[in-house]
Amino acid sequence: MPTGLLTYTAPVKVRVSSRGASRLLARHPWVYRSDVLEGPEQAGLYPVYGPKGLLAWAAWNPASEIAVRAFRYRPTDDAERSLLDNLERALALRKASVEAEPGGGFRLVHAEGDGLPALVLDYYAGHVVLQSGSAALEPLLPRVVERLIERLPVQSVLARNDQRTRTLEGLGLEVRPLFGSVPEGVWVQEGPVQYRVDLLSGQKTGAFLDQRDNRLRLRGFGGERALDVFSYHGSFALHLAQGFRSVTAVDSSADALARAQDNARHNGLELATVEANAFEFLRQEEKAGHKYDLIVLDPPAFAKSKRDLERAYAAYKEVNLRAIKLLREGGILATASCSHHLTEPLFYEVLAEAAADAHRSLRVLERRGQGWDHPILLGVPETHYLKFALLEVRD
Amino acid sequence: MPTGLLTYTAPVKVRVSSRGASRLLARHPWVYRSDVLEGPEQAGLYPVYGPKGLLAWAAWNPASEIAVRAFRYRPTDDAERSLLDNLERALALRKASVEAEPGGGFRLVHAEGDGLPALVLDYYAGHVVLQSGSAALEPLLPRVVERLIERLPVQSVLARNDQRTRTLEGLGLEVRPLFGSVPEGVWVQEGPVQYRVDLLSGQKTGAFLDQRDNRLRLRGFGGERALDVFSYHGSFALHLAQGFRSVTAVDSSADALARAQDNARHNGLELATVEANAFEFLRQEEKAGHKYDLIVLDPPAFAKSKRDLERAYAAYKEVNLRAIKLLREGGILATASCSHHLTEPLFYEVLAEAAADAHRSLRVLERRGQGWDHPILLGVPETHYLKFALLEVRD
Repeated sequence: MPTGLLTYTAPVKVRVSSRGASRLLARHPWVYRSDVLEGPEQAGLYPVYGPKGLLAWAAWNPASEIAVRAFRYRPTDDAERSLLDNLERALALRKASVEAEPGGGFRLVHAEGDGLPALVLDYYAGHVVLQSGSAALEPLLPRVVERLIERLPVQSVLARNDQRTRTLEGLGLEVRPLFGSVPEGVWVQEGPVQYRVDLLSGQKTGAFLDQRDNRLRLRGFGGERALDVFSYHGSFALHLAQGFRSVTAVDSSADALARAQDNARHNGLELATVEANAFEFLRQEEKAGHKYDLIVLDPPAFAKSKRDLERAYAAYKEVNLRAIKLLREGGILATASCSHHLTEPLFYEVLAEAAADAHRSLRVLERRGQGWDHPILLGVPETHYLKFALLEVRD
Repeated sequence: MPTGLLTYTAPVKVRVSSRGASRLLARHPWVYRSDVLEGPEQAGLYPVYGPKGLLAWAAWNPASEIAVRAFRYRPTDDAERSLLDNLERALALRKASVEAEPGGGFRLVHAEGDGLPALVLDYYAGHVVLQSGSAALEPLLPRVVERLIERLPVQSVLARNDQRTRTLEGLGLEVRPLFGSVPEGVWVQEGPVQYRVDLLSGQKTGAFLDQRDNRLRLRGFGGERALDVFSYHGSFALHLAQGFRSVTAVDSSADALARAQDNARHNGLELATVEANAFEFLRQEEKAGHKYDLIVLDPPAFAKSKRDLERAYAAYKEVNLRAIKLLREGGILATASCSHHLTEPLFYEVLAEAAADAHRSLRVLERRGQGWDHPILLGVPETHYLKFALLEVRD
């Protein structure tokens, strides 16, 4: 069949507005659909052009609100190789840690923070859980898995693509083994303790690796009574049980607390668990006149959107205020927020206000955040979400 | 002589306005003279009252702009003992470190951060330098020294009260030994290197202990070429010289660079030194097309007052922009600001803007600050001044 001279040629590049261009020039990887002038009909890896020429190579999805997710800002003749280069770099960064503690838990790939759009790989004692939220990357996943098992001692890879955000990308939901034989669950080593990760069921991937180094940081603290509020599976509580005579884990989920008890038993540790609303529990403890030596506050994201911020600010303040009042003089508050809408300056403002209302001083022992394997890109606020403060209460 | 019935009684307490009271209630230790309603004529330790009663005990000086500097927020019948209790607590916090490294350098007392108004004690390999900026504490210094030498292995104590800020308190300037025999200078151990501290002469107390842990953090980095800009005595450069084949220290003071060379020789290390304006040097290096693997930027406080902030912001941005351009892909920027007026959020905004202008990404390796022996009080922004970021440059 002869090819016509005047056939329609689909665009093979993305063109963005000058506003979109300025974001990429400033190395923010995302351009929203409203700043895209033209692009291919299908998702894929494409060059992105602004008014003055090539800006980046990106994962492109016309169906997504975040239509452009850049992963490279220089020319390339092999976009796929560039993407796999970013994977190599991410794995190289974790290799020494994984090899030093093959039974541990590490985030191998942290999406945009590692130049791999919407791709997350978590390592749990030899088993990797993959989450992918970019339609453009979907066809590449077999090569990702191939590269991964070449580089690290991995026994299985499971795609846990059951996050609802995938539907925003026009992707289906699925939980599917990509390599090896995936066990129901594994025990993950974290310093002196082990905790259970359910690979095939469980909320998210079951653990919160971003808090790993903060949990380990609490080693060395000791005393009479410690409290782990919003305890979930008790992973902070396990570490506290090494140094404190009595540790109470508080959560609103009986199921989570049952797992906390399983974890404690496995480690030969004792844990008291209380199924309660955290705010009410703290209020009652205050009424009862109880005092603690250390309190961990690791609440879920109170601010899931910017709209929630005012209400969330008040909730963070209340829970911190109550904890500050429950601590003895010299006691330690270990407090976190994982809402990226509650920025770090706002987080410290919340804490300062709570302390002021409690008429107590807070001495900063350390200001921390998400672990090193969850890289932050400066100027990309979405990559920085976890705040963690270690504070000493003084009268 | 008989005492009259209607003699004038000097006030034995300080009364502050409701604005002053609200600061103390929120645990900010300072009340400005303009918020004081009444107080004794002489400097001293006095109780401070607000409209609703006792708020705090404070170092009081009617001649000072900061007339009230609180050190205790509960009743006491022995203000002097309360103050010495704060000293005990500060020394206890450092004791293990000093005993583990008696040849090292540590801040023993960090003024308001340790509840000891305007009092700074620095430990250099057995010799302590004291700086005092509160007239109310002046009579107590002999007891401070007594307590200090009881608690820690100290060979000498020198009062280096030659800061001009003392004149604002109506205090004289003096450099005077308070205990033992003060040597001209000492060698201070810092990880694998030693640096010289001039006790009797030298700018400030000669070292910058607040950066100690940040200098030590640079161990482990290595490569071809490293740069230490605003190098002063070369203390960052000494650590870099362990891991890099060539290290250049840049400073505008020939005298400082001569000391950097003395330090290098003492450690058997090689250092290139360049006497230059940092901005011009970086500009010339860029023109020459030189590239570096790691650059340290440790500038003096560009913003000494709030008025300077706009100009300082531009200067911080320029120096960081130039450094970012000089780094090879994957290179490390270790950058600091000690201006407390340039708050931490502003500092990271400066860096994000500099990176955006350089069209490069900055991955955050670590966000650090002043060492643990320079405690920060939440809600007292004056106690948090040093920002230090460790960043990886990506194209």
